[in-house]
Parts: sequence; structure tokens; C-alpha cells
Amino acid sequence: MHRTKVRVVEGVLDANDTIARANRADFDRAGVTVVNLMSAPGAGKTTLLERVLGDLGDIRAGVLEGDVQGSLDADRLASLHVPVTQLNTDPGFGGECHLDANMVRSALGDIGLDAIDLLVVENVGNLVCPAEFRIGEDARVMVSSVTEGEDKPLKYPLMFRTCDLVLVNKVDLLEHLDYDLDLFMHHLDAVHPGVPRMLVSARTGEGVAQWRDWLVEHVEVARAGAAA
Amino acid sequence: MHRTKVRVVEGVLDANDTIARANRADFDRAGVTVVNLMSAPGAGKTTLLERVLGDLGDIRAGVLEGDVQGSLDADRLASLHVPVTQLNTDPGFGGECHLDANMVRSALGDIGLDAIDLLVVENVGNLVCPAEFRIGEDARVMVSSVTEGEDKPLKYPLMFRTCDLVLVNKVDLLEHLDYDLDLFMHHLDAVHPGVPRMLVSARTGEGVAQWRDWLVEHVEVARAGAAA
Repeated sequence: MHRTKVRVVEGVLDANDTIARANRADFDRAGVTVVNLMSAPGAGKTTLLERVLGDLGDIRAGVLEGDVQGSLDADRLASLHVPVTQLNTDPGFGGECHLDANMVRSALGDIGLDAIDLLVVENVGNLVCPAEFRIGEDARVMVSSVTEGEDKPLKYPLMFRTCDLVLVNKVDLLEHLDYDLDLFMHHLDAVHPGVPRMLVSARTGEGVAQWRDWLVEHVEVARAGAAA
Repeated sequence: MHRTKVRVVEGVLDANDTIARANRADFDRAGVTVVNLMSAPGAGKTTLLERVLGDLGDIRAGVLEGDVQGSLDADRLASLHVPVTQLNTDPGFGGECHLDANMVRSALGDIGLDAIDLLVVENVGNLVCPAEFRIGEDARVMVSSVTEGEDKPLKYPLMFRTCDLVLVNKVDLLEHLDYDLDLFMHHLDAVHPGVPRMLVSARTGEGVAQWRDWLVEHVEVARAGAAA
């Protein structure tokens, strides 16, 4: 029973990887760098996007918003005048808790890849399943809020292990929390030694320039690679 | 394709409900009240349990800890001298993002239902899938931290709609946040009008007595019902 289940899931993930590669080929053809942005609910993904999307120089950005229901985040980003495509995972019951490659693929026609250089995919707020499904991204960025506690890397290891950058958000609240930042970093290095990390506050703007620079650099590196 | 998928999921949920009813029958036979405790990662489920488990009078409590990996929360609760059973959902890849009735059923033999009056099941931190899977519980309690923002009821409606009590946690941080509590309550009533709610702070102890009283009352009501 258990074995059968593992096999079924592996089959699902194999199929996902095949579609993720097709997405990747489309992104490459259009010269689009894709960032998969993930976190627990309410960690600050949308606010961290609001902070940088208007400040990327000549890089044309687009956003794919993944939500179970509604378009609250897309509405928030609309004022930034970047193209935002909403993808809802709710087919009538509780909804899917993650985006997969096929859902992203179904939205490619609406996104207009030829008009952008950078696509940020804001995944559903969840620290488990989004980490299991590649969508054809160049990089995975996760946001971990200091209000969530120091133990999260140990409790959700796949998410922390498979990301390329960790944004440690809401550091403006550190002085009001019983949160040991060194302990969090220790746990982070235990599951993903040396993974790049930035201390940020979407509220005060601390660290936001560094996060923007990271995005700009990733697009430029991809451009240079395509031109070579 | 879409329709097939919905049917498959409905089949899974039907099977889950059948097992949940079997769990329910076992809980009734043993006279155990079961609370399914759910939230996003890091909202404070374990700390809110630590605050009340030692203070339940003659009610014998037990805990079933659901985690993707590890036993961090079970270890924290061990000092309270209540029986804690660990249930890990990780079968080798990323792990399941929720508990279902069958996982809970597989742990019933270890829990020792005859020795307890109250079983608190601490679900995996996630606002989507745990809401979809009944486990045979008497009541669902969800913890929503004010650090997560006011929009969560609208973004994860099934979770907020199917719970019997909302613990609005970390209210000690309200003065440091741009969080509109009235707006949160407005969104909460939009998806689940009048659902009982309590303002609590696991850190300062605010509202904790009320949360303990709620648990005690639920066990006593169930006992009175069984004796009638």
C-alpha cells in the first residue's frame, strides 16, 4: 500500500518534470528568466515584490500569481504597471496547495513571454508541496519570516534545501520577538549549507536594494549566457 | 482532463470520510474528545498547547503530533508529561502536507485512547489541504497569527469556513504591525459569519485561560452527552 503510493507520486513527479522541461524550453526561446517565489502564508512574498518590481531598470518584469482563490495579490501589484496573470488552483473543493508545471504551462499563453525579461511566479503559500514541483524555473527564492520561529528549516527541509536564496523577512520585528537569528542560520546551514541569504524588511525597506540587485544580476547573467 | 482530476480527488475524499467515521466510532467508544488543531507554519500551535496542557484539571490529555519530518514539537511537549505520539508524513520525497484519516488511524494503537479524555491532533502547518481531510474530530480549531496579514480568510476560505474556533495569536505584536484587526474580523465574518474567535498571545499569556476553558468545556459537553 505504502509502496504503491510512493510509486504513484513518483509517476506524478516524473510527468511534472517533463512538462517543466517544456516550460523551460519556452522560457529559453523567449529569453525569460523565471523565479519561483515561495513561502508560508503571510511571510511577505507580495510585499517584497511590490518593493522591487518598479525599480528594475530596463528589465521588463511580469508576474504569475498563484492563489487558491481570488486575485488579492494580483490587484495589489496592478498599480505597479507590470503585467500580472492570475492562476487560481481552486477547482471546486479546497483547491491545490501548490503550482505545478502544467498549471504554469496553461497560463503561458496569457503571460506574453515575448514582452518580458523576468517572470516571477508567486507560488501558493505553503512550505511543503511547492518544493516538490519544478515549474521550469531558473531559480527558487523562498521567504522565511522571523515570526515563524527558528525551527522551520528542520521541519520543512525540502523547501529550504532546494532554494537558491532565502529572504529572511520582517527583521524589523526581531527586537519584539523571542527569536534567535543565529539559531535559525544554524538550522538553515544544517539542511542547506551556505545557501545565500539576505536579512530584509518589506516594511522598512531594509535589505530590499540587495534583493533587487540579486534579481537584476540573475537576469543579466541569463542574458549574457544566451548571447554567448 | 480537469474533470477526471476532480473525480479522482472526490474519490480520495470519499475514502477519507469512510475512515474518518471509523476513527470517530473508536473515539466515541473510548470516550475521547478530539480536536484537530491547524494553522500556517509558525503560527503558534505548539506554544498554545504548551500553555494549556498542564492546566486542564482532571482531564487527561494526549497529543498526536503531525509533522513532515522530525519530532521537534513532540520533544517540546514531552516536558508536560502528557502522552505524545509522533506521526511523520515523509515517506522519502517531500512529504505529505496534511494529515488524513488513514494516517491518524495508523497511529490509534500507539495513542492509548483508553487512558485519555482529550486528544489534540496538531496537524501539519498548512492552510490548504488539512482543511480538506476530516480525521474523525469533534472540533476544528485554527490558529491565525496577526503577523500573517488580514487577507488570509479570503485567500484560504475552506480552512476558515470549516473551523469551529479561531485563535487569533501573537496579539502582543499588534502595536508593531500595520495590521487592521477590524479588517481581519470583517474578512473572517465574510467567509464564516459569527465563528467563535479569541484574541490570544502564547507569549504573554493573554487569552490563554479562555482557550483552556474552551477545551475543558468541550470535553465536559461530550462527557455529558455520552452519559445521557
